[in-house]
Amino acid sequence: MTRPTPLSGFPEWLPGQRIIEQTVLDRIRGTFELHGFAPIETRAVEPMDQLLRKGETSKEVYVLRRLQAEGADSSDSGLGLHFDLTVPFARYVLENSGKLAFPFRRYQIQKCWRGERPQEGRYREFYQADIDIIDRETLPNHYEAELPVVVADALASLPVRFTMHVNNRKLSEGFYRGLGLSDPMAALRVIDKLDKVGPDKVAVMLAEQAGASEAQAAACLKLADISTPDSSFVDAVRALGVTDPLLDEGLEELAAVLDTAAEHAPGLLVADMRIARGLDYYTGTVYETFIEGREKFGSVCSGGRYDTLAQSGNDTFPGVGLSIGVSRILGVLFGSGALTVSRPTPTCVLVALPAEEDRPACNRIAAALRGRGIAVEVAPAAAKFGKQIKFAEKRGIPFVWFPGDEQQVKDIRSGEQAVADPATWTPPVADLRPTVA
Amino acid sequence: MTRPTPLSGFPEWLPGQRIIEQTVLDRIRGTFELHGFAPIETRAVEPMDQLLRKGETSKEVYVLRRLQAEGADSSDSGLGLHFDLTVPFARYVLENSGKLAFPFRRYQIQKCWRGERPQEGRYREFYQADIDIIDRETLPNHYEAELPVVVADALASLPVRFTMHVNNRKLSEGFYRGLGLSDPMAALRVIDKLDKVGPDKVAVMLAEQAGASEAQAAACLKLADISTPDSSFVDAVRALGVTDPLLDEGLEELAAVLDTAAEHAPGLLVADMRIARGLDYYTGTVYETFIEGREKFGSVCSGGRYDTLAQSGNDTFPGVGLSIGVSRILGVLFGSGALTVSRPTPTCVLVALPAEEDRPACNRIAAALRGRGIAVEVAPAAAKFGKQIKFAEKRGIPFVWFPGDEQQVKDIRSGEQAVADPATWTPPVADLRPTVA
Repeated sequence: MTRPTPLSGFPEWLPGQRIIEQTVLDRIRGTFELHGFAPIETRAVEPMDQLLRKGETSKEVYVLRRLQAEGADSSDSGLGLHFDLTVPFARYVLENSGKLAFPFRRYQIQKCWRGERPQEGRYREFYQADIDIIDRETLPNHYEAELPVVVADALASLPVRFTMHVNNRKLSEGFYRGLGLSDPMAALRVIDKLDKVGPDKVAVMLAEQAGASEAQAAACLKLADISTPDSSFVDAVRALGVTDPLLDEGLEELAAVLDTAAEHAPGLLVADMRIARGLDYYTGTVYETFIEGREKFGSVCSGGRYDTLAQSGNDTFPGVGLSIGVSRILGVLFGSGALTVSRPTPTCVLVALPAEEDRPACNRIAAALRGRGIAVEVAPAAAKFGKQIKFAEKRGIPFVWFPGDEQQVKDIRSGEQAVADPATWTPPVADLRPTVA
Repeated sequence: MTRPTPLSGFPEWLPGQRIIEQTVLDRIRGTFELHGFAPIETRAVEPMDQLLRKGETSKEVYVLRRLQAEGADSSDSGLGLHFDLTVPFARYVLENSGKLAFPFRRYQIQKCWRGERPQEGRYREFYQADIDIIDRETLPNHYEAELPVVVADALASLPVRFTMHVNNRKLSEGFYRGLGLSDPMAALRVIDKLDKVGPDKVAVMLAEQAGASEAQAAACLKLADISTPDSSFVDAVRALGVTDPLLDEGLEELAAVLDTAAEHAPGLLVADMRIARGLDYYTGTVYETFIEGREKFGSVCSGGRYDTLAQSGNDTFPGVGLSIGVSRILGVLFGSGALTVSRPTPTCVLVALPAEEDRPACNRIAAALRGRGIAVEVAPAAAKFGKQIKFAEKRGIPFVWFPGDEQQVKDIRSGEQAVADPATWTPPVADLRPTVA
């Protein structure tokens, strides 16, 4: 075949980058588990009617068909690849509600697909790492304060700073209602465009699409301008002179989210009244997260509270979730060379091969070391030891083992060489596995 | 929405089962890394012309299209979901050959998709865990002996016995050639049907499709009957009186595979001359693995040596690979209840909540324990402690922590309760994480 070329939007990493990606995913998973989230995975496909419920994103769905679908078997027609993990999770909860213990804390780390036009920070295939807490009938608000703390822990080791902008749908909707707007959702959708089109255009759109007077539009824009790193936003909103019971609820809930984060993840959160999120199903706190200095890449961790996404007959399962855009974060970090790995292979020790007939003896040495948790490979072919050391050097393998009556191991970085026994020798902890810095 | 129902062929697990699946995948990954295999992942999609190169499986491919593909942008037309990890890996090696160090040892654990009719042991979405070693120009035969040992280590902890049936294409092809058959590949394809259609029908097909005389067909069937747990098959084949240089090569290579496994994975391998593998691209050792007593589920770990799969212009990258069908194995083990998990959540400690206003204090206790690697969640709501203990019990959480001036921790299985400090208390190692038995 002719040499293949990459597919735009479908990133693939070299082994060293994949080790970094795995390390990041492992840390995220480890943090989610420390916070008591249980793992699930959902299938990659969902019925199209599920995928199209959500509006905004539906046009980007990849639809499947079997190459030679038989007429009699159409069980897999009408399927598409999931574009996020929230819609599949809501479906999973409804399907398995009888077998789950509520409140149900779950994490889910999987690839998603969207047929978006590829650009910096936007892929067609990407990893999402989600946590959600879902309950039956009612869901206490403290979970809305808990999730940002979990995400802060999960991302703590990365060499960039994150700022999570939070708002509350009740706050915005209550404010618009208190202002006298009859269609608060329409106002919300317009405010969501603020960063894209600017305040003047938004004022016009508020008049056209949400029936706002000039004074009402000005008040909406004033609200959207409020942004504080603590709960002082409450006074700033009150100063606008609008009152509404739903607004009060929203203010109280959002202040609690800010206060909890102030203790456990200081500096992470900003209350930001212009955060709206395009999706209809959010009903409480909404979150968007940006990498400091890389805001143009868009949000790298978004989510919110949803009260009616998972609903079937009389059963309602309100939830709150946050979704880390792992691929987008890694794209930024790989792009700036901010993460490096000590070697692009797990191998810690190369067992040198004096002659091909020594392979069984070398395999025994390798097996003894592996039995004690040390990653080993045996040299591919007998050759001068200098050549075998170069083989290790090229791969960043730190140690070469020389078999024989008196076995020796050489740290090829320092040149130090010492007698060693595969039943007892141990490398420095820092060399045992590839390390990410 | 109405309560959704499962999709046939797309298995989804409950959290406890997913913890088991993760544990199995982690062990496989850990073993692959101990043997020096580096990780990669390839995108889920491949160009259709790549997927259709392989023949046999191509009719089962899922084809993708974007729901609203724009005329100007057809960059993702003609894509399908990969049905294995070998074809994508060969493509990846060609695409990145300038950046990889050869011989390249890689593992790859990902989902694959096939539009097969779902049945016991056959899914439409499933996990494969692959190892391959690929080199430039030539590949030493010792790798064909090494891979079964790695797989034996990877599957060692599972509560079933595996038997890997191995053959060598050179052996079969050399034998057919030595017999005087002009189209050895045709004979190979017929022998591959032996288990399905039986010897009488195969004899007829050998005559029809491979031009075999009655004596030649009988010799082919005699060869297919040879099966030994050690290298004694060499004498059995020689006794059939056929000679050919390629046959000699195949006998020698297969004997070496058996001898290596006899030392490092005793009882795993059977030399089995009826193993043919349907795929054209194999050129040396071929492998198929069965769970003892569950042979009807089909092979759970297959592969072989391929000399020309990854080829571009003058560059050839011969390789050898084995692919573990993780989902098929788990399907069998879940079906028989052979694997259980100690609890369906990572949580080791539930911090009880005396009153909602104690939540910040309880969060601090949880954070202290998490900082020392212990998975913790705080109770969802203030309630009588008896109710909170029941909450833990229902989830299999072994410990409940009682905050206060004198903090205490209770093992709710034994009822033992003791004063404890979150800065120093440690659970028994066996309770730290869910354990799979």
